[in-house]
Amino acid sequence: MNQPPQHFPCTTSELELSTDSPPAASSRHGRRLYPIMAVLHYTLDFKLRAPADVSATVHGLQSIFQEQEMTENVHNLYGHGYLATFVGKNGRFAILRMHSHGLVTFDLQCLEGDDVAQVDNLLNALEKKLKALLDGNIQRIKRLPVLIRGSDVDRYWPTADGRLMEYDIDEVVYEKDSAYQNIKILHSRQFGNILILNGDVNLAESDLPYTQAIMGSGKEHYAGKEVLILGGGDGGILHEAVKLKPKMITMVEIDELVIDGCRKHMRKTCGNVLDNLKGDCYEVLVQDCVPVLKKFAEQGRTFDYVINDLTAVPISTAPEEDSTWEFLRLILDLSIRVLRPGGKYFTQGNCVNLTDALREYEKLLGRLSCKVDFSKEVVCVPSYMELWVFYTIWKK
Amino acid sequence: MNQPPQHFPCTTSELELSTDSPPAASSRHGRRLYPIMAVLHYTLDFKLRAPADVSATVHGLQSIFQEQEMTENVHNLYGHGYLATFVGKNGRFAILRMHSHGLVTFDLQCLEGDDVAQVDNLLNALEKKLKALLDGNIQRIKRLPVLIRGSDVDRYWPTADGRLMEYDIDEVVYEKDSAYQNIKILHSRQFGNILILNGDVNLAESDLPYTQAIMGSGKEHYAGKEVLILGGGDGGILHEAVKLKPKMITMVEIDELVIDGCRKHMRKTCGNVLDNLKGDCYEVLVQDCVPVLKKFAEQGRTFDYVINDLTAVPISTAPEEDSTWEFLRLILDLSIRVLRPGGKYFTQGNCVNLTDALREYEKLLGRLSCKVDFSKEVVCVPSYMELWVFYTIWKK
Repeated sequence: MNQPPQHFPCTTSELELSTDSPPAASSRHGRRLYPIMAVLHYTLDFKLRAPADVSATVHGLQSIFQEQEMTENVHNLYGHGYLATFVGKNGRFAILRMHSHGLVTFDLQCLEGDDVAQVDNLLNALEKKLKALLDGNIQRIKRLPVLIRGSDVDRYWPTADGRLMEYDIDEVVYEKDSAYQNIKILHSRQFGNILILNGDVNLAESDLPYTQAIMGSGKEHYAGKEVLILGGGDGGILHEAVKLKPKMITMVEIDELVIDGCRKHMRKTCGNVLDNLKGDCYEVLVQDCVPVLKKFAEQGRTFDYVINDLTAVPISTAPEEDSTWEFLRLILDLSIRVLRPGGKYFTQGNCVNLTDALREYEKLLGRLSCKVDFSKEVVCVPSYMELWVFYTIWKK
Repeated sequence: MNQPPQHFPCTTSELELSTDSPPAASSRHGRRLYPIMAVLHYTLDFKLRAPADVSATVHGLQSIFQEQEMTENVHNLYGHGYLATFVGKNGRFAILRMHSHGLVTFDLQCLEGDDVAQVDNLLNALEKKLKALLDGNIQRIKRLPVLIRGSDVDRYWPTADGRLMEYDIDEVVYEKDSAYQNIKILHSRQFGNILILNGDVNLAESDLPYTQAIMGSGKEHYAGKEVLILGGGDGGILHEAVKLKPKMITMVEIDELVIDGCRKHMRKTCGNVLDNLKGDCYEVLVQDCVPVLKKFAEQGRTFDYVINDLTAVPISTAPEEDSTWEFLRLILDLSIRVLRPGGKYFTQGNCVNLTDALREYEKLLGRLSCKVDFSKEVVCVPSYMELWVFYTIWKK
């Protein structure tokens, strides 16, 4: 989602090491030599009003695990409640824990392809029995949707503020490691294809509101204007801007493999605009935008609109500053230099919850070589599942 | 989210038994006698290209658990890979499993209030060591955002199609069990307060797009018209409709406690419209809508717009039909009877992914006593985190 550098600890890391590997959805291509089975992880939690009677509860549950022919193992928790694990002959593994402060957690891990009805029966039986045993002492029963771990098709893509989100992904459409980043295009049942760069959801085919917001939310007149797009390899902005009959659009995208993937698999976003890198009123330069911006600034070339659609931590072939914030500032400074008086600079900011990062960015805007003013707008981008801030910046 | 009956197995159940209990955010009210600590559940998964050497990997990891002074227990998995559990003196519990088909899963459960830096160090050390040990054989490393289990403030509210979503909930604002349902209003950092009925996300203060869609997406002229709202206890539709100067709005909401909660805590949605149940151009009847509809039908009273904003499985004081679909049909039939020729009936349908339920609903529309036509629209409602279908229905 292209967020500026974040100063909060990220609870999720996603490292994809896919070069030279079979595509993730490789079972469809028959190129994998061993069966791919995800682990299905079920949870069932009872939050209690007061600590429960451990031995009565455990005794009451015994028959359920015995019926399942699971081998029980009671662990010494050094006074931190009760913990038993259970192993089934089919590799099922269960954990029952009764915390001394009044919380019962149950986990069940089994392999994809296990008998779902049997697993459901076990969970239902356990829930029913615990309800009876803990009657009157229950504050909340929570059974989360099953966690699918190690699947070929990864459905979990956290928000920019680090929350767990399960997407309705059913297919890996495209996956490459370019010289710059890991590129994935995944199919979502409701959002269409989604472009994911280095684990960040960038844009889905459903996300016209993103493109509209980063172009000024329909309040600008592009006809006859000169436009510079930084990044934008998915072709969304270019596709929408071309329709508005500008004089000329120059787009500078560093990563040809992003363009390739989106040209093939994000047609609802880019239309046919990426079929050729040059059109009647546009040109796509497959280059690092920093030297291009410098060249334009030196030549005195200017634009009516500069649209920064670069990724989170902008990619460069030769970053000149150590700090990402300083690098962001370099791009901003250069962009404002090539902006005509009266022109506008548009960019996406961050998720609305990352207030520290947003404040830091706005501070940066106050420290540019050229004085600028800005406005911001909060937009709901369908595939993001969190509200996103967009900035409009202009010379004072 | 008010979805019609679903014929798919629901992977999530949420049973709240809060009557007579201290409020969920009770620690703030000092009414709870024992400390509330959630369990933090971390996961770290390595998806491999090929099965790994178990003994070399396990041997390589030993020092990490020894350093943590965790007691190891190796379980017999009956040939289904390797499984070891580890218990720490502070109640930490870890599970390392190496599946024979090339997946390594690691779980770490600890209590809220545990040393986060230490836990992070353990996870980082493990990730680093596994990276080294499995070098060249790694296809994906996945570390999900931590699961928070048994917290006072429940952040997990699944989508209508059963996917796991973590909301940025930070406070329980209101919680009641009425005669009809469990009512919660939770505060989301980005969406404002969210009304949740029986575990279903109904409406957040951010969700004006929902209200606009169920009123005809700005394409209708309400001025001077007569409007009937079924349900709508959050006051959102009433608040927006009143602005449009209709002749009269009649709203029929069964649950006074929903109105009470929303009047206090959903002000961005309802404004001051629920402060009085009667206004210049509206009246709120706190009644079951079925007898009211029957009375209107008998009296020959008709409306220009009927807006059905009832919950998923509509609540009734005396449902006359066993099947929920038949009950839905009863409400639809009665609503169409009180609709003027040329009038429109608006309702929300379901999440766009539940194609079977949507198809079933559309079949129902073909079986009404009065022939109707319909159109539908897919809308992004911010707090839903999934695209939603809305229907416009009119007499043929």
